[in-house]
Amino acid sequence: MSRLKAALDPRSIAIIGASENPNKVGGRPVHYLDKFGFKGRIFPINPSRPEVQGYKCYKSLNDLPEAPEMVIVAVAGDNAIGVVEDCAAHGVKVAVVMASGFGEVDAVAGKAKERRMVEAAHKAGMRIVGPNSQGLANFGTGAIASFSTMFMDMDRAEGHVAMLSQSGALSTVPVGFLRQRGIGVRHTHATGNDADITVGELAVAVAEDPEVKLLLLYLESIPEKKYLEELAAVALDRDLPIIALKSGRSEAGRAAAQSHTGALANEDRVVDAFFEHHGIWRAPDMRGLVEATELYLKGWKPRGRRLVAISNSGAVCVMTADAATAVGMPMAKLADETDKKLKGILPSFATTTNPIDLTAALLSNSRLFGDILPVIAEDPAADAFLIGVPVAGPGYDVEAFARDAAAFGKQTGKPLVIAATQHSVAAQFAAEGSSVFPTETEAVTALHQFLAHRELMARTRARKAARAKVNQPSIPVSSTSIMLNEADSLALLAARGIPVVPHRLCRSRAEAIAAFETIGGPIVVKGCSADIAHKSELGLVKLGVRTREEAGEVWAQMEEIIRKHGARFDGVIIAAMAGGRREIMIGAHRDPVFGPVVAVGDGGKYVEIFRDTTLLLPPFSKDDAREALGKLKIAPLFAGVRGEPPMDVDALCDAVVKIGELMLDPAARVMSLDLNPVLLDSVGKGCVVVDAVVFQG
Amino acid sequence: MSRLKAALDPRSIAIIGASENPNKVGGRPVHYLDKFGFKGRIFPINPSRPEVQGYKCYKSLNDLPEAPEMVIVAVAGDNAIGVVEDCAAHGVKVAVVMASGFGEVDAVAGKAKERRMVEAAHKAGMRIVGPNSQGLANFGTGAIASFSTMFMDMDRAEGHVAMLSQSGALSTVPVGFLRQRGIGVRHTHATGNDADITVGELAVAVAEDPEVKLLLLYLESIPEKKYLEELAAVALDRDLPIIALKSGRSEAGRAAAQSHTGALANEDRVVDAFFEHHGIWRAPDMRGLVEATELYLKGWKPRGRRLVAISNSGAVCVMTADAATAVGMPMAKLADETDKKLKGILPSFATTTNPIDLTAALLSNSRLFGDILPVIAEDPAADAFLIGVPVAGPGYDVEAFARDAAAFGKQTGKPLVIAATQHSVAAQFAAEGSSVFPTETEAVTALHQFLAHRELMARTRARKAARAKVNQPSIPVSSTSIMLNEADSLALLAARGIPVVPHRLCRSRAEAIAAFETIGGPIVVKGCSADIAHKSELGLVKLGVRTREEAGEVWAQMEEIIRKHGARFDGVIIAAMAGGRREIMIGAHRDPVFGPVVAVGDGGKYVEIFRDTTLLLPPFSKDDAREALGKLKIAPLFAGVRGEPPMDVDALCDAVVKIGELMLDPAARVMSLDLNPVLLDSVGKGCVVVDAVVFQG
Repeated sequence: MSRLKAALDPRSIAIIGASENPNKVGGRPVHYLDKFGFKGRIFPINPSRPEVQGYKCYKSLNDLPEAPEMVIVAVAGDNAIGVVEDCAAHGVKVAVVMASGFGEVDAVAGKAKERRMVEAAHKAGMRIVGPNSQGLANFGTGAIASFSTMFMDMDRAEGHVAMLSQSGALSTVPVGFLRQRGIGVRHTHATGNDADITVGELAVAVAEDPEVKLLLLYLESIPEKKYLEELAAVALDRDLPIIALKSGRSEAGRAAAQSHTGALANEDRVVDAFFEHHGIWRAPDMRGLVEATELYLKGWKPRGRRLVAISNSGAVCVMTADAATAVGMPMAKLADETDKKLKGILPSFATTTNPIDLTAALLSNSRLFGDILPVIAEDPAADAFLIGVPVAGPGYDVEAFARDAAAFGKQTGKPLVIAATQHSVAAQFAAEGSSVFPTETEAVTALHQFLAHRELMARTRARKAARAKVNQPSIPVSSTSIMLNEADSLALLAARGIPVVPHRLCRSRAEAIAAFETIGGPIVVKGCSADIAHKSELGLVKLGVRTREEAGEVWAQMEEIIRKHGARFDGVIIAAMAGGRREIMIGAHRDPVFGPVVAVGDGGKYVEIFRDTTLLLPPFSKDDAREALGKLKIAPLFAGVRGEPPMDVDALCDAVVKIGELMLDPAARVMSLDLNPVLLDSVGKGCVVVDAVVFQG
Repeated sequence: MSRLKAALDPRSIAIIGASENPNKVGGRPVHYLDKFGFKGRIFPINPSRPEVQGYKCYKSLNDLPEAPEMVIVAVAGDNAIGVVEDCAAHGVKVAVVMASGFGEVDAVAGKAKERRMVEAAHKAGMRIVGPNSQGLANFGTGAIASFSTMFMDMDRAEGHVAMLSQSGALSTVPVGFLRQRGIGVRHTHATGNDADITVGELAVAVAEDPEVKLLLLYLESIPEKKYLEELAAVALDRDLPIIALKSGRSEAGRAAAQSHTGALANEDRVVDAFFEHHGIWRAPDMRGLVEATELYLKGWKPRGRRLVAISNSGAVCVMTADAATAVGMPMAKLADETDKKLKGILPSFATTTNPIDLTAALLSNSRLFGDILPVIAEDPAADAFLIGVPVAGPGYDVEAFARDAAAFGKQTGKPLVIAATQHSVAAQFAAEGSSVFPTETEAVTALHQFLAHRELMARTRARKAARAKVNQPSIPVSSTSIMLNEADSLALLAARGIPVVPHRLCRSRAEAIAAFETIGGPIVVKGCSADIAHKSELGLVKLGVRTREEAGEVWAQMEEIIRKHGARFDGVIIAAMAGGRREIMIGAHRDPVFGPVVAVGDGGKYVEIFRDTTLLLPPFSKDDAREALGKLKIAPLFAGVRGEPPMDVDALCDAVVKIGELMLDPAARVMSLDLNPVLLDSVGKGCVVVDAVVFQG
């Protein structure tokens, strides 16, 4: 751990405002540093005491024998400001500021105080955690600079999970869940207001701790993407999975976040796309953040998602198949050989096809379980296993089941989950090291998350490997952007090799007639003005014009309409009636945090109603575009249904990739664009942009 | 309880195969009858013992002083058959047959044995539970005719929940979950193979027990609907909620069900529609079956679903708003007066708008919680409440919070759920009688289920009240059905007042020309043959025919095509080019279990791809149809978007209702129909069936 070493592994820690009482904010850290075996030097500072919790106490920073690497600032309110300035002056490397009453309370005066502390710190090369931070806790080094209540009744239980959050509560609650399951945590950090070191920057440092095997994040707002991108890269390099719970998914949630911390509201679909782009699994809620944790710690290298289920209840077999289908895990088709062997072991009324139903026969013969597992273990069709034991009591040799299941898990090396409702049964399986869930739904859901997350990481890694590092120039979102007229919009696209409908911009009636002759009827006539976004509503779109006379006539009408509205008259577009089978939309904009975002999906008039679109973050490849298109509801149409030929998805992907490149090119200055419809035709016939609006910054 | 009284509340019970050992199948019931205080007479029967578990034991039914109302048949395998026959001969009213090895093992010979027992029973007026039944357990009467292991460690804990299932495991597991939460169960019955008394028939009897306040069902297959309909009616009459877990939702699940019990596969969407039609809540899985149980037992009469959330964690406020949005519960807008009062109580950095964030200020002032609740209680905007206490430990007066929350709940009489992760905190709230969930998502999900289920019941009740009892004649699904040609199909619809496109069936070229003149061009020409379902593929649909000559010409071509294919030539249809704005589909078929089913949704070529359809079970009203249409993804279009006028939903509903009536009319003999497209136009312009295929039985 080289980054932020003084925050995570300081050689010495001073506690300003140290208290003898381990239940006070200034007493807790002293207590914890002792309890969790911090190896460095501990300097309590409190002018009124000679000793604190058995440690020599100092009057001030001046009195210390050395400059401490870390100082815990456990004084309240504005007093913290002076203390931070003092720390900076004394060569401290990191100050952890617990005091509240800053930016979280007052977005103006409070933020100003934060800036004052950070400026003082940075001048001296010091970094700040907080203010309003519950503190940092690294159980690996014993550097527990936190006043969290939770650690009071925690044993020295090191683990491999790291939990990071700005919120104190949300650094605590997930850890509580994990502890209830006997899963140890190595790091849990609550960074507070993030005036200097953000939760993202700290996460990058934590991700470099080789003992961390799973990193959990709670985020209420993502004000910048830099550290998350770096975190994702570091994690992917060392195959460290990251699960993030980003709240404020809904309008109501974002309103709540804004009213209590003034948090910047992220566009939720873009957050989804960003996490996916970087191989980070997005948890839907608190339960989802922690539910699958155990599975990540097993060291499994899954190869697929075909499930084999085994139970002594037929009902659990049925429900497991339902649950697996719901998450997209197919039931494995076992080999005939396996079936034959199982038939030799199980009674005739058991089911030997997957899911395998041992029936209540298990009650009279507890060996059945141990006997079939080695047979199933040998079948190559299985990628993962679920064993469901809903009912077991006197008469069942649950101890043997638990042992056999654990041995089976070791033998196969493949993911295995147990569904057991009864506490006593669950406890026996857990004691043998198996991952136990109360119901088959929960077991399958966790298993699926683990498998799908590993797949996502593999895809992300492959994508990053395939692409040379692109230096993404940062293009600021322009506060003023101007709309290009349609002719200029189409020209800009055409210049990038994106197919646009054949057309001419005609400044005169004669030009219109000439264009009609060149393009050939029937044609489309559209009024062109950089002042008019919605042409149809003003009668500025006329389809199916079939004669040169009509073309000239319509030209004149449209000129009149545009001038009547006092808009710039840029001309009239004469365009071919483009062919195609499906109206697609391609859009793009610049997210203030995440940068360029490209949307592609079902187009036409009702885009906003059906919202069948998917997002891509450039740079992305044609394969990425193809995968994104596969997620659309209209995806089956691309392959051709009801005897239709397939559509030219390749051409569409090509256009989408070019839009991605356009958005990355600072010279193009494109702030947003909306291409709708893009007419997609059958394979070999390409796609063509029919209508386009581009905004430039 | 008048129905099946001898099964649920017998005056005397004999146990054939009674055992001294309470861990054996024949020993358990004797033990349980004693343990759970059965008030009737108990007659163990075992030729080899004078006494069983302290009760006088008899050699055979012959030796009993009276004919027992119930006999528990605890002998194994085929021996049970003779015993059942003997019971019938002795005037027994109900035999509970626990032996397995019948229909569940062998669909032919096993089922035949079941029939033999049932016939013997019915001749004597006896009823049978089972075979392969784990048994019945009515804790209200103490009639525990079950060998379930679970009751061994259960105290005499009567409750108000009834659980019914064919499966023994699934009668046990949900009860186990409820017990873990301290919720008592009054009935839990596992009916086994349902050779005579089915789980549905027993459920009707249980629903009449006035002490039952929530009825839970596990079903793997629904072979008939009769008792479920009766159950729903009885339950609705006495306001008893029913939650059903019907597994086999997926193809894989149905395959599993079929391979282990030969269960009939129900069409899952129809099951959904059936439950909804009858006000039964369908649980997605085992957790969903039991998760909200407590809320049903509170006696709340909810009025809406506007939520107010209160927490000491801002993050929990945000996540609660997210969770509420996800299930469709809006956050209540509190009155200005409330806000003013809250501002007077809470510190300035707390959030007084809903969700209300008390912040960590609660740590320094535990009274804040108790002080704000009465203020919130008075606000009429709140329909339901969530209190989230993710973090509380030393320093928090959790005992007071728990007390205040419970008092608040009583004061408002409105639904209240608690989200508390820490076991100790959860326990304190639970001890005061509050309903506690580990996370806000789970609390909101349960609350939403309860509210949505009450709404569903109210709607169902209103619908049933509005409609005079319709005597639904049973129309069997015909094994052979014939397709009508399009002209006959349209005529059948028109005769029922369903608007069809103006058309003529022309048997000659001259008729075609005359029809063109009458209808006026452009027209559509379609070949008509009861042998040809897919006209387009054969070139039998021609749009936009504009002249009388062309009409005659196309007529001749189509005659030739039909005759060339060796199909019956029923003529050629000349139809008007119908106008309309959206292609709708209306379909109907007869489900072998649930009877007529009407589907309505987005129409056109890609119906099977987008599957934006919803199901209705006739009889239903126009309001029901309107509600169903509201669930479609295309629903926003009906109201008119982007400046368009609304569509004629009223006319569409009228047509859908008429299709429902048609399907209920035995005289019409319609087995299935497919109307696609039905062109829907703007308000006042109606809808019109353009293409129709009807199958008659």
